[in-house]
Amino acid sequence: MTADLGFATVDVDRERRQGVAEIIYGPGKTAAQITAIAAALLASASGPVLATRVGAEAAAEVLAGLPGGAYDPGARLLCWRPAAPGLRPFRVAIVTAGTSDQAVADEAAGTARALGLAVEPIRDVGVAGIHRLLAHTDRLRAADAVVVIAGMEAALASVVGGLVDAPVIAVPTSTGYGAALEGVTALLGMLSSCAAGITVVNIDSGFGAAMAAFRLSRAHRRAPA
Amino acid sequence: MTADLGFATVDVDRERRQGVAEIIYGPGKTAAQITAIAAALLASASGPVLATRVGAEAAAEVLAGLPGGAYDPGARLLCWRPAAPGLRPFRVAIVTAGTSDQAVADEAAGTARALGLAVEPIRDVGVAGIHRLLAHTDRLRAADAVVVIAGMEAALASVVGGLVDAPVIAVPTSTGYGAALEGVTALLGMLSSCAAGITVVNIDSGFGAAMAAFRLSRAHRRAPA
Amino acid sequence: MTADLGFATVDVDRERRQGVAEIIYGPGKTAAQITAIAAALLASASGPVLATRVGAEAAAEVLAGLPGGAYDPGARLLCWRPAAPGLRPFRVAIVTAGTSDQAVADEAAGTARALGLAVEPIRDVGVAGIHRLLAHTDRLRAADAVVVIAGMEAALASVVGGLVDAPVIAVPTSTGYGAALEGVTALLGMLSSCAAGITVVNIDSGFGAAMAAFRLSRAHRRAPA
Amino acid sequence: MTADLGFATVDVDRERRQGVAEIIYGPGKTAAQITAIAAALLASASGPVLATRVGAEAAAEVLAGLPGGAYDPGARLLCWRPAAPGLRPFRVAIVTAGTSDQAVADEAAGTARALGLAVEPIRDVGVAGIHRLLAHTDRLRAADAVVVIAGMEAALASVVGGLVDAPVIAVPTSTGYGAALEGVTALLGMLSSCAAGITVVNIDSGFGAAMAAFRLSRAHRRAPA
Amino acid sequence: MTADLGFATVDVDRERRQGVAEIIYGPGKTAAQITAIAAALLASASGPVLATRVGAEAAAEVLAGLPGGAYDPGARLLCWRPAAPGLRPFRVAIVTAGTSDQAVADEAAGTARALGLAVEPIRDVGVAGIHRLLAHTDRLRAADAVVVIAGMEAALASVVGGLVDAPVIAVPTSTGYGAALEGVTALLGMLSSCAAGITVVNIDSGFGAAMAAFRLSRAHRRAPA
Amino acid sequence: MTADLGFATVDVDRERRQGVAEIIYGPGKTAAQITAIAAALLASASGPVLATRVGAEAAAEVLAGLPGGAYDPGARLLCWRPAAPGLRPFRVAIVTAGTSDQAVADEAAGTARALGLAVEPIRDVGVAGIHRLLAHTDRLRAADAVVVIAGMEAALASVVGGLVDAPVIAVPTSTGYGAALEGVTALLGMLSSCAAGITVVNIDSGFGAAMAAFRLSRAHRRAPA
Amino acid sequence: MTADLGFATVDVDRERRQGVAEIIYGPGKTAAQITAIAAALLASASGPVLATRVGAEAAAEVLAGLPGGAYDPGARLLCWRPAAPGLRPFRVAIVTAGTSDQAVADEAAGTARALGLAVEPIRDVGVAGIHRLLAHTDRLRAADAVVVIAGMEAALASVVGGLVDAPVIAVPTSTGYGAALEGVTALLGMLSSCAAGITVVNIDSGFGAAMAAFRLSRAHRRAPA
Amino acid sequence: MTADLGFATVDVDRERRQGVAEIIYGPGKTAAQITAIAAALLASASGPVLATRVGAEAAAEVLAGLPGGAYDPGARLLCWRPAAPGLRPFRVAIVTAGTSDQAVADEAAGTARALGLAVEPIRDVGVAGIHRLLAHTDRLRAADAVVVIAGMEAALASVVGGLVDAPVIAVPTSTGYGAALEGVTALLGMLSSCAAGITVVNIDSGFGAAMAAFRLSRAHRRAPA
Repeated sequence: MTADLGFATVDVDRERRQGVAEIIYGPGKTAAQITAIAAALLASASGPVLATRVGAEAAAEVLAGLPGGAYDPGARLLCWRPAAPGLRPFRVAIVTAGTSDQAVADEAAGTARALGLAVEPIRDVGVAGIHRLLAHTDRLRAADAVVVIAGMEAALASVVGGLVDAPVIAVPTSTGYGAALEGVTALLGMLSSCAAGITVVNIDSGFGAAMAAFRLSRAHRRAPA
Repeated sequence: MTADLGFATVDVDRERRQGVAEIIYGPGKTAAQITAIAAALLASASGPVLATRVGAEAAAEVLAGLPGGAYDPGARLLCWRPAAPGLRPFRVAIVTAGTSDQAVADEAAGTARALGLAVEPIRDVGVAGIHRLLAHTDRLRAADAVVVIAGMEAALASVVGGLVDAPVIAVPTSTGYGAALEGVTALLGMLSSCAAGITVVNIDSGFGAAMAAFRLSRAHRRAPA
Repeated sequence: MTADLGFATVDVDRERRQGVAEIIYGPGKTAAQITAIAAALLASASGPVLATRVGAEAAAEVLAGLPGGAYDPGARLLCWRPAAPGLRPFRVAIVTAGTSDQAVADEAAGTARALGLAVEPIRDVGVAGIHRLLAHTDRLRAADAVVVIAGMEAALASVVGGLVDAPVIAVPTSTGYGAALEGVTALLGMLSSCAAGITVVNIDSGFGAAMAAFRLSRAHRRAPA
Repeated sequence: MTADLGFATVDVDRERRQGVAEIIYGPGKTAAQITAIAAALLASASGPVLATRVGAEAAAEVLAGLPGGAYDPGARLLCWRPAAPGLRPFRVAIVTAGTSDQAVADEAAGTARALGLAVEPIRDVGVAGIHRLLAHTDRLRAADAVVVIAGMEAALASVVGGLVDAPVIAVPTSTGYGAALEGVTALLGMLSSCAAGITVVNIDSGFGAAMAAFRLSRAHRRAPA
Repeated sequence: MTADLGFATVDVDRERRQGVAEIIYGPGKTAAQITAIAAALLASASGPVLATRVGAEAAAEVLAGLPGGAYDPGARLLCWRPAAPGLRPFRVAIVTAGTSDQAVADEAAGTARALGLAVEPIRDVGVAGIHRLLAHTDRLRAADAVVVIAGMEAALASVVGGLVDAPVIAVPTSTGYGAALEGVTALLGMLSSCAAGITVVNIDSGFGAAMAAFRLSRAHRRAPA
Repeated sequence: MTADLGFATVDVDRERRQGVAEIIYGPGKTAAQITAIAAALLASASGPVLATRVGAEAAAEVLAGLPGGAYDPGARLLCWRPAAPGLRPFRVAIVTAGTSDQAVADEAAGTARALGLAVEPIRDVGVAGIHRLLAHTDRLRAADAVVVIAGMEAALASVVGGLVDAPVIAVPTSTGYGAALEGVTALLGMLSSCAAGITVVNIDSGFGAAMAAFRLSRAHRRAPA
Repeated sequence: MTADLGFATVDVDRERRQGVAEIIYGPGKTAAQITAIAAALLASASGPVLATRVGAEAAAEVLAGLPGGAYDPGARLLCWRPAAPGLRPFRVAIVTAGTSDQAVADEAAGTARALGLAVEPIRDVGVAGIHRLLAHTDRLRAADAVVVIAGMEAALASVVGGLVDAPVIAVPTSTGYGAALEGVTALLGMLSSCAAGITVVNIDSGFGAAMAAFRLSRAHRRAPA
Repeated sequence: MTADLGFATVDVDRERRQGVAEIIYGPGKTAAQITAIAAALLASASGPVLATRVGAEAAAEVLAGLPGGAYDPGARLLCWRPAAPGLRPFRVAIVTAGTSDQAVADEAAGTARALGLAVEPIRDVGVAGIHRLLAHTDRLRAADAVVVIAGMEAALASVVGGLVDAPVIAVPTSTGYGAALEGVTALLGMLSSCAAGITVVNIDSGFGAAMAAFRLSRAHRRAPA
């Protein structure tokens, strides 16, 4: 159930076990290593193959060696064989507090779409002008899950958590300075939210939020009629 | 949509909005205050009413003033009108790393059951003897969601995250001493997990995990046939 | 300009300089020490004399030795010669996120009233049910200053900061557990608020907020017609 | 009440609500994005429009696309339509501990002036030579509000807080090294000040201090005759 | 050069090496252990023998077994054979910011006097009323060394450091709450002081300050004529 | 390979796998739970069975229900069937910096002896009197492994690490106050030691050090002739 | 026993005392300084001489001045006179969680081999696919010691610790982002491991792990027949 | 007593008050600003004028505008009119743990010499080879004060503190990585030292240590015959 590439032990069983092949974490890997792992995964799996946090230069080099994929520079995402959304795809609202959070939202949206989810973007609706958020209440309530992406004090997650009954996945970002502590303040705030049942992923991890949404969609599909 | 009790502004709209009435957070409230809020919620809502983190003495005093509820001392939970599980309830596996994590598991299980979810307990399967966990692989994979409760280094969450494709809600606990930093180490570890798509709630928050699972169950119910 | 009590050097010039006599910080002082300092201040100043964070037992002992004052057990405040509010007093709205924040609000309100300010309490309007807060928008906008008291993630401060144009004094509280870090999370969140121009005082410092409001009222009074 | 630019949701109601249009936070935005938002604000508001923390190169690009504004390189501030000070403007003393704090003071002064406040600068009067500060006592006492900008241990805020009765807005700076912890020590010190009623904003946030002073000036203007 | 008591290895050479016998740290030792170590030191040394941080009950038990010593309850100090000050003793000014710092000052003063130093106490002169401190400028400048004891933001150390040319030993205390972080804020502030050449000892360590002053007095005595 | 006690899943395979049965961690367990787990281990294993961090009262209750064991109150250790040391047992020197570290040393020594190791205690040899340590150089060099137990700045570990060539297991303790941060300073210091190849276990974990030494002894036994 | 180079005091006795000459820590030293120290060690010792964390450019310069050594760019290690493994060398398994941990593993392996140990590499077997690790159980159990190198939450150390009875040396790495806190989370997790007797070295210190293994091998060699 | 340069308020009284003119802190100042301040100090004082932490390029620019000074690139120090040591200067031993601490030692030595103190350097005597330090015991004991400069775990300060009776000024450095936390570990360790009476200055502050020694020398000079 593994493929030994010498420098890496690829978990070729993961698509069977979890619905998507192992996703390649780009940092610390050379373009050649990414290419070799992606090739092994494309050979052993049948669905999407992704690499995250890949710079533009490395991406070009990888695609030269392994054509057929696409690179999304905003999301810094490489993808081969993206999933097609089904007839009634799982709908994820991706909400940001400010335009500085957009790169994280791009990673979340790019990953989610590559895995077959439908993304509903709601941008720049931080709580300093609460009416901006409230104007989207119906769209938020229509989603199967809501990803809230916010830095600084991250108050947006609590307000959204109180508006919807769907699962809320909160992503703290490193937006801000000083007491924002590079995202740690947002992280702690989301974990301490007064809105019950919010869950949290790592700082700036648009990828983690998309994967959490993908897990939700798997549970969703097998729900009883 | 609010009831003003003088000392508290009760959100009597919440059951309509989120499927369950506002849940009373016990610490810092007198028995009389808990009684008054619970009475207001019982009058304005039709489903379960809960109060968390209530000591045995206060619970007795509340129940004397507002009969018909039940107190679970392990979970430190007061509950009136618990939900009946449906024909095909949402199944939550609640997994602990050690017996010291049991109080948090009790809070999660008590809350989840009161909200109509079905709980599958898997106890004391920390990774120092990994075969203990692997023996439960099939039960874990059968669950609609998995709550992993662990302190110290909280490695259990990552291992479970790699075994199942369902949503994983990780609860760090304050079990351990020294470098365990009263749960902060477990919290940071779960947020940094190498298993993709795990989500995390606050330290020792069995309640938060149950509410996150309840949100999942709401999404689940409206899934298309 | 000082009175030397041996164990303390009382700043008897402060009322002239700042509009109110030195305020006695209770912790770490015996009832006898509080009595002696208060007596010195009553003799050297003409307006209110206060002691904060005084327990009920010590307060009774102090009042026995120095009659004429009053003790507010909720605020843990001793006060002699409270100021009378003028014809058009400075109006401070004191807003709390939850009932667990009430003790801090009591300290803020008790101190503010003793200094001649008018207090408008708005209780238990945390953002998990945002309509509770929005219902008070007009009262908030009518205030000369707003004190926002919140623990956990303290999102309330940002939302209020976006609704009003008056000065906002944010007080983080130690309400919450785990990642709330005994008020540090609320503190960092308020300092990182996306609502511009919010100012922050120390954790649980209802006293600090009242004194900041008192400084505002001083500036207010000398405003040009 | 919002303008949707696709990448941003502009709060065009803010000038009515808070007296000044939404202020653009430069970091993480392209010159084109700043230009578009500023244009939308200039169209929807009637008073000043500002963008903070903008580098010189980006500023030139923005001004080329949207003439009529001015760039202050010390304050890193872009401004269109600055407010004219009234007959009796609100006077803000801006006090620094050392010359290394000047950039933060420039941001505060530039923002305050653009909003119509009068700025009184007092420079380089840290407490290691306390007579430097005491020489300015009269100027400090004449101000409607005092902004104190200091790094390292930030003792200046406490000394100023004891000298004046006006509102004191303390800005910790990242000046210093080692135990100064990039401004965290100054921040904690200001929050723990023994001078009562001091309020604090984020590290290096000259902008936050100016906005807090602007809120004070709003309250001031509506003071009764 | 050591005495082996089984449970302890007493450094009986220290008086020769450093001018005073090993000083017993009370916490974690039984009265019997303190008695045995003190007896060994009294037998092997000729000057003062001290034990710090000893509770009243344990002190009584120790003195019953080893008469001839004295207990200072304010300083929590046990002392046998205190040194007599010489004709021209080393003069240490011990300055506190507030009355809550007095216990630490007592430990410093008690230890210093037991070692033969002359103590000049200056109490409760925190910077919120700077004139209180300035009134003592001549006494401060006359001292051979100054110990500054302050909690909260500990600004006093910087102001004193700028007034005198003598060595300044700063002792942060745990006075304060919230952002004072049990003395860590005062500690960091003193280490980051803008007054050059201040040195710092551990939080609440009146003992450490006295020992540092004792080292100074040793250097002092051998100064050339 | 597991025994299910309902509240616990006992790893009955561990003695075969690691040379000693699962060791019971006392905190958070009732006497009845400890008794039941110990009974299961005594039945399934053939060697020593231990429970750590057990209070005297609980220990008495457990031994009443499960006779044949012994309780060491200094080490807070319950033990049944301790191992007999062999002809040439593995020799562990256990070195403490001060008498306040003795409780941790007792836990280490008690556990090590119960597992068949030979313990060589060297007490109270902190570096403030370095000759105390150097006097034991030969005993230190004769040991098969050295456990160094120290709090405060924990300098002892580095000095010992430079004297011997054997494995050094460093145990930071919570001895000290203020900047000692309840053992965190000692922990960080030992991890940053300038003596190469020192390894570290958790704060106050005499148990962890003994188990690390036990692992060493296992490797030792199978060394080639 | 020392050689004074002016800028450095070389410990030329260390090979006799600890089995290997002082190892040169590269950072902060010029190529000329490294060359001089290495020359002094080659002259005074007879076995291996190493310098760690040396960049490629500096290494070339050093080797030009002091030929006969070799540079390993992956390990960033300079070595002269590497030890030859004996007939039955000490076997160290070096296990990594992911390919991003490889640089640390290279430093550990390069150092260990230079000191005469035998290295068994097991790569990229993180717990998200636990079967990858379990496939190597026999190789792990055959090792004399196991070095586990992992970042993020570092769960691998606990799982390995439960599988083998040999000494486990855990190396936290700075792999990961956000809540991984540049290796601090992995460090705290390894110290809090639920697997008993694991020891830990500094973050990213492959060198420290190799030296700890070398100490083990020294103890091993003198084990009785 | 001040000179107003517009951008700076120079404390021209300091030489009279503290024996040396205000010392210019280089970071954040332009060469032109340093030049202007130095000129003002040279005009108003009669003794040494210094600027610290000045880069080579800026130093050349300053000296071009204000000749007669000298630049020490190791110490990064600019100096005009250095003091001549007297007949019996105050002797400061400056001891480093490793060669990586040399830059801090250079700053301390350069500043101390410019102020007229005599410096005795003792280099690279960290405790991993304790005999290196002990070989210098006589030189250490002959000094009037000892500055100990060490990073990593900084154990050297405690060992020196136990050897001498003179004042010990400990300087933590940012040498090391990982758990050394850029000098914070060394700082905390020195503050928690088991050697009584050690004092500590800021991380990497060779300047602070020299100024503390200068304060000692001032006290020394006025000692009675």
